[in-house]
Amino acid sequence: MSTIQSFIKQPLSVSVRSTLRGAGQVMFQQSAWTGLLFLVGIFWGAYECHTPAVAWGALVGLVASTVAGMIINEDFSQGIDGLWGFNGILVGCAFPTFMGDCWQMWTALIFCSMLTTWVRHGFNNVMAPWKVNSLTFPFVFCTWLFLLASRYMFGLEGDELSKPALAVADATQGLDTSFGHLVIYWLKGIAQVFLINSWVTGAIFLVGLAVCSRAAAVYAALGSAISLGLAVAFGADASDIANGLFGFSPVLTAIAIGCTFYSVNWRSALWAVAATVATVFIQAGMDALMLPYGIPTLTGPFCVTTWLFLLPRYQMDRRPEPDHSDWVKDIENQENK
Amino acid sequence: MSTIQSFIKQPLSVSVRSTLRGAGQVMFQQSAWTGLLFLVGIFWGAYECHTPAVAWGALVGLVASTVAGMIINEDFSQGIDGLWGFNGILVGCAFPTFMGDCWQMWTALIFCSMLTTWVRHGFNNVMAPWKVNSLTFPFVFCTWLFLLASRYMFGLEGDELSKPALAVADATQGLDTSFGHLVIYWLKGIAQVFLINSWVTGAIFLVGLAVCSRAAAVYAALGSAISLGLAVAFGADASDIANGLFGFSPVLTAIAIGCTFYSVNWRSALWAVAATVATVFIQAGMDALMLPYGIPTLTGPFCVTTWLFLLPRYQMDRRPEPDHSDWVKDIENQENK
Amino acid sequence: MSTIQSFIKQPLSVSVRSTLRGAGQVMFQQSAWTGLLFLVGIFWGAYECHTPAVAWGALVGLVASTVAGMIINEDFSQGIDGLWGFNGILVGCAFPTFMGDCWQMWTALIFCSMLTTWVRHGFNNVMAPWKVNSLTFPFVFCTWLFLLASRYMFGLEGDELSKPALAVADATQGLDTSFGHLVIYWLKGIAQVFLINSWVTGAIFLVGLAVCSRAAAVYAALGSAISLGLAVAFGADASDIANGLFGFSPVLTAIAIGCTFYSVNWRSALWAVAATVATVFIQAGMDALMLPYGIPTLTGPFCVTTWLFLLPRYQMDRRPEPDHSDWVKDIENQENK
Repeated sequence: MSTIQSFIKQPLSVSVRSTLRGAGQVMFQQSAWTGLLFLVGIFWGAYECHTPAVAWGALVGLVASTVAGMIINEDFSQGIDGLWGFNGILVGCAFPTFMGDCWQMWTALIFCSMLTTWVRHGFNNVMAPWKVNSLTFPFVFCTWLFLLASRYMFGLEGDELSKPALAVADATQGLDTSFGHLVIYWLKGIAQVFLINSWVTGAIFLVGLAVCSRAAAVYAALGSAISLGLAVAFGADASDIANGLFGFSPVLTAIAIGCTFYSVNWRSALWAVAATVATVFIQAGMDALMLPYGIPTLTGPFCVTTWLFLLPRYQMDRRPEPDHSDWVKDIENQENK
Repeated sequence: MSTIQSFIKQPLSVSVRSTLRGAGQVMFQQSAWTGLLFLVGIFWGAYECHTPAVAWGALVGLVASTVAGMIINEDFSQGIDGLWGFNGILVGCAFPTFMGDCWQMWTALIFCSMLTTWVRHGFNNVMAPWKVNSLTFPFVFCTWLFLLASRYMFGLEGDELSKPALAVADATQGLDTSFGHLVIYWLKGIAQVFLINSWVTGAIFLVGLAVCSRAAAVYAALGSAISLGLAVAFGADASDIANGLFGFSPVLTAIAIGCTFYSVNWRSALWAVAATVATVFIQAGMDALMLPYGIPTLTGPFCVTTWLFLLPRYQMDRRPEPDHSDWVKDIENQENK
Repeated sequence: MSTIQSFIKQPLSVSVRSTLRGAGQVMFQQSAWTGLLFLVGIFWGAYECHTPAVAWGALVGLVASTVAGMIINEDFSQGIDGLWGFNGILVGCAFPTFMGDCWQMWTALIFCSMLTTWVRHGFNNVMAPWKVNSLTFPFVFCTWLFLLASRYMFGLEGDELSKPALAVADATQGLDTSFGHLVIYWLKGIAQVFLINSWVTGAIFLVGLAVCSRAAAVYAALGSAISLGLAVAFGADASDIANGLFGFSPVLTAIAIGCTFYSVNWRSALWAVAATVATVFIQAGMDALMLPYGIPTLTGPFCVTTWLFLLPRYQMDRRPEPDHSDWVKDIENQENK
């Protein structure tokens, strides 16, 4: 209530703060400062990789999805917490990464970003009986459909997508596993949460997380490290590992299970490690599933695994009835204790 | 209750009327006259395209699925309203369109039509907690499985299906966009709801809709027009556009959102337009998804999109608690107001 | 309660009995003797086919998944009934059948077996509102993902999987349909429930079923026979038929519908036959769906079909409110009557 009153008094500053929070919520952080640092990381990485459209797309998607919530959504407190924007910013990163820089792409980007806010409302309704949240799945679901559509609508120019194929070559050889390179892969694994291929961005993201929650930064680092180790040990594709593509979903799972939906303790830590390990295999499986379409898994493996580990509603901390439908409340409850 | 009493008094005339209503319910119209005009359109188009088996299949599927309900279903009022037959008639249109005219196909057609009535009961149970209906998804789901099965069971002769492929050629060129041709594509988009490739059938369907609900006819026309415009602007496949294959799912979405589950007003009109736009992209995406199987999307894109736009349960008219589990009641409620 | 007290008194004998029950529960039989005979059949078949790793994998998977339940699960009575082990034993059969005999495979086998117990808890939560059970789907879901992952992680050596393809050749010709051969295919259909390609194993399984429930043995025999007849009549692949690959899912459906979730009577018998017929087509469809991945359907077709036939919650026996969430209770209720 008081947040809505503050919005009426200072519409601009609250709007800006809520929009920035949208960026932070991608990794479950409600802080506008975290969101700002994430945006800095995105802009740095996008310009470093000579794909500025990704950075501007992120900004457009963030604003469009927040506006979509304002137009239709009754529950304004969700918007204040930044829960309207986090799917849209990811749509905004994904579209210019995989599709050409044309008016059709930008139109689709804005429409799809808005769609995620509405779809999220529906998905959360669907999942409410099991007390889980749709996480970033509205982004994943809508973006999958639009990327697939670019295979059929040549105006969308999906040229940057992988070529559809029935099998990949055995390409594990040739991975440089010197310590310095491993650190770079590890940081890129964190940067790829926003589809950015830059270790500097990964480092900025870690700082952004630490600003709001040191535990989240630790779990992000741990998630990327575990996935890196497993991907090497089980012989995954070398270029995928080198670009951090095995890291971003486990990073999100680790933060979600380790310090978002459960409070930090040994029991939840072991559960988070098991979930992170599962994410790596589930991602490899989903990668194979996408192969005939040449479509990326996005953060789908994170969503699937996190649901799998939340749905049994095992008790991992002192709260009597695990309810994982709203992480903002979950985090607040932890802090109160 | 009184409907069941009337059935006991006049079993034949009520049976015929309920069966005809099954044809009308494909486009949410409970009128037996609409259903009769739809059947006329189907027979006209099937004979025009030299595929009479499609018309007779429609009739067999309609009767088989209605009988399946009589055998097992407790809720007789559903049958009276024509809600047993609308999936079966679509099965009956689809099987002879894509599979060979042999005894195995006809056996499978009858079994699959009956299955849709039972499956519908289960799907509606599944969706009840979110107050949405399974729409034509029982038809879509069962037909997908049988069409896929024809790839593995050579007795079903799935020769009319597309060849499985990993990518389509860039074939937007060569579309005749003169006004006369656009009108033909637009009418074919409506005819393809029943898998008929004939503009005359499309015109008959429009008349059939107008007999029962003028708003439904307007939204059908609008849905086909919007999808045609978007498909051209975003460079979709020329032959798909010319055969009306981008039209039928948006037509159904427009009727569903615009004047079935919500009453007619400006707010629901805008929502219907957004849903129609989304259907076009979702269909293109699902087309790409089906590409490696050479299987059509059928009315799947309509089902998915309509669910996405109903699940948030946004309020678009004066009814306080949106409940979209039963369109017969929804339409009655509108008329009472 | 008394079962848990007996566990405290005799931990070893109860553990062994519960673990053996896990083998029996694959075909809905709670008897440890049935489970023992199933294990005998698995060991016989695995050594006959020169794949001893399959038998030892079954044992490892059975124990790992039961231990996973002990570590975390609150509901100990489920473990006593053998409901923790039946997914794990199937994982243990599947992994060495399709992947190479290396440390990565065994690590993944143990992790995946444990995962099924946790995932089952979550899936059952998901399905609780509709009063159905997740059946063997935790095994199917997790194994699909790991088999897919082996396409991307070359350490898992998924060399025994089929080659990904877009279409199969028309290979119905050349099936030996002499009576002696048909009997062998029919028995192999039952053996393939545990992925064993041996008619002797099929016969041992039938004996194992009859030890606990004669009706289950009859329905298993019937399910395999119906599927064999349909597969031949509809022209399915000859080598699939000869190896019993069309039999195992219908066998499970027939037992599930005919004498597990409903009591034995004419009404449920007809429903079981309809479900068995549907399983054959759904399996052929899912086979086609898996073709581009070269992944087997496992018992997926059984799960899907059984859900489809349970979800409408039609009344097939005297129990007033069909509840199919727990077959152990369902079978007990039948016996009490």
